[in-house]
Parts: sequence; structure tokens; C-alpha cells
Amino acid sequence: MSKRGRFITLEGGEGVGKSTNMAFVEAWLTAQGMEVVRTREPGGTPRAEAIRELLLDPALQEPLSVDAELLLVFAARAQHLAEKILPALARGAWVVCDRFTDATFAYQGGGRGINPARIAQLEQFVQQGLAPDLTLLLDMSPEAAKERLEGRLRELNTQRDRFEQEQTDFFMAVRRAYLDRAAASPERFAVIDAAQPLEVVQAALSHVLEERVAQWQ
Amino acid sequence: MSKRGRFITLEGGEGVGKSTNMAFVEAWLTAQGMEVVRTREPGGTPRAEAIRELLLDPALQEPLSVDAELLLVFAARAQHLAEKILPALARGAWVVCDRFTDATFAYQGGGRGINPARIAQLEQFVQQGLAPDLTLLLDMSPEAAKERLEGRLRELNTQRDRFEQEQTDFFMAVRRAYLDRAAASPERFAVIDAAQPLEVVQAALSHVLEERVAQWQ
Repeated sequence: MSKRGRFITLEGGEGVGKSTNMAFVEAWLTAQGMEVVRTREPGGTPRAEAIRELLLDPALQEPLSVDAELLLVFAARAQHLAEKILPALARGAWVVCDRFTDATFAYQGGGRGINPARIAQLEQFVQQGLAPDLTLLLDMSPEAAKERLEGRLRELNTQRDRFEQEQTDFFMAVRRAYLDRAAASPERFAVIDAAQPLEVVQAALSHVLEERVAQWQ
Repeated sequence: MSKRGRFITLEGGEGVGKSTNMAFVEAWLTAQGMEVVRTREPGGTPRAEAIRELLLDPALQEPLSVDAELLLVFAARAQHLAEKILPALARGAWVVCDRFTDATFAYQGGGRGINPARIAQLEQFVQQGLAPDLTLLLDMSPEAAKERLEGRLRELNTQRDRFEQEQTDFFMAVRRAYLDRAAASPERFAVIDAAQPLEVVQAALSHVLEERVAQWQ
């Protein structure tokens, strides 16, 4: 196994089962003997989580400008990279992250219509070439995901945050952007059909992880 | 007078008398019949002020990475431009702003040593060519400013924020960066010797404002 850890991201829209499968990926890697750092975006460190709160707060009296939103997302990411992701990878830990820059292209780009070239400018500014070693995209139609999500929300009786209040066509644009990103980088992405029963999804995840871990050794 | 308002910024280190002279500039322009919007950076709108709090909070347990700091500064600026500065200028108001992008080059660039080319990248990203019509730089040696500031702090018995805790050589680098910026854009900058008695400083401010207002008519 290489000295430097590997950087694995989980991506997908709302309601595709990201949390459940994050736990599965973490457990799978831990069972292989890796030190795993599980984290999420936006957020992942105290200061980055404070930025996340500014992004998700639906109560403020003022709309957040698209540029400000994008710069906040990358500010949180810069902090997360400097304080958590890069130190973990450097000491040999594997980082499993719930969403990363692909989510920015999907949500702010596909969903909100920000020019992807502007997102790419900030990606280059902050990451300077760094990208995940593997991105697991949990793909599902927005209609199916919405049904799941509504069931979950009824159960938990939680408030939806600002992003979750968006409409179905927004989520269709998000999904399309994710699939376009996957098609453009097939060596980095593994697209998993998340509408399948959970055990089938997790068998697919195991299969991808086994293959990649073998490659990297 | 042109339809679009004018954008005037006040710059300078700690303790140079920026607040007092902001009020003077505002009063001077108001007396000429202009609608004046007085504002400040980082901040100026509720969301931008919330970002300011993240920047200035000395209590958080985690250092803020230089990239995250820079991106937060420009996120606040993007929000301030979209929600306050640009709408004000568009309706013909004059905007008087306590610090703007020159402060980023002075503090983050000169003071913290961030490569000015990286600051310029974000300046271009956010402002796309927009710059103040006039920048009043209140210039004073850091030693003199420190004396003034310490007197003020003893009086007010306030806590210094994160930036104010920095050392004298930091402020010398800030001053140098400000003066370099002024030398590079003499048509935009007016450098005022702020170590002079207040009435002399304000006579100089009046003189500059008269000259510029006449030019712009």
C-alpha cells in the first residue's frame, strides 16, 4: 500500500442514501485495516462548519448572491483541505468525504446555472490540481429520491434546509450535471444505480472498492 | 452630474483616524446635495457582516487558512457589491466605503504575505474590472498610529480583534503595500498625510473632493 492515503468522495442528490452508504464505505475500509477519516462538505472542520451554517441558513433577510455562495463554498473547502483532508492523507489515512467539488459543479453549476468555467477557476485556485482518487456517484431519478426523502422527513419531522426546498427540475439539472462529470472522468468515477435494493447497492460499492484497492496496492 | 453615483473608498492602517474622516467625507458630500451611502468592509450587508464575524473572531479553536481567509474576504465583497454598492451606484447614490480591495492587497498581501497575483485573480473574478472612482489613503507611520490606537483602546477598554493584535512590522508591511498601490494608480488615489492635525487633514480631504467633484461634473 502506498504511503499517502487515498481520497474517496461520495456524491449524489438528496435522498439517494448517501449517509447509509458513507457508513458502509467507512466500515468496509476499516475492515481492510485502513485508518479512515470520515468527513463532509461543506464543512468538516469547526471553521468550515461555521461557513456551512452561513450557506444553509434559510432565515437571513437577504438573498445570498451567486458569487458569494460560490466563494463561501470554496472558502470552506480551502479550510477543510488545509486543516483536515491534506494532513490526513499525508499521514497515510484514507479520507471518505460526503460531497466535494463535483457537488459544486452539480448544485451551483447544474442546479443554479452558474457558469462551470467560473467554478473551474475557483477549483484551480483552491485545489491546484488536487482531485479525489475515486468518486462514488449514487445515481437515482429525482422522482424516486424525492419519494424516499419525503418518507424520511415525515419520519424525522425535520425542517428542510435551503437546498432541500428546491424543486424537482432543479434536482434533474443536478443529476444531469453529475452524470456529465462522471462521463468526462470515467477513470475517477464509479456510477452506482442507487435505486436498487440497499444490499445490491452495497455489493456494487464493495466490488468497486475491492478493484480500486487492488489497483492502488 | 452624471447619472451613476461615484464610488469613494477610504483606506489606511489602524489608528489613522479613518472613522472620524469617514464621517467628514459623508458630511461634505451630503452638504453638496449628494445621496450618500456609507458602508464598510468586510461587511456592509447582514450576510456580509456575518462573514466578517467569521474573519475577525479570535476565539475559534482553529487557525484560518490563508486561502480560506482570502475567499471569505471576497465572498463578503461579492455580497456587498451585489446587495448594496452596485444598486446604490445604479440609482445615482454616492457610496463611501471604509476599506475595499486595496485593504486586501495591504493586509492579506503586504501584511500576511499572500501572493498579490492570487489576490488579483479573485479581484478579477468578483469585480470584473470595477474599481473605486477615488481612493483616499490616510497615511501615517505605524509608530504614530500605534500610539493613537493605544490611547484610544485604554480609553475604551476594548478588546483588540485578531487583526489589531498583529505586530508593528506587520503594520509597516501594510503601509508599504498601500503606498505601492497608490504609486501604481496615481489617478485613482489621493494620499493624505494623516499625522497632521485633524483640521489640516480635513482641509486636504475637502480640497481633493472639490477637485474630483468638479472633474466629474
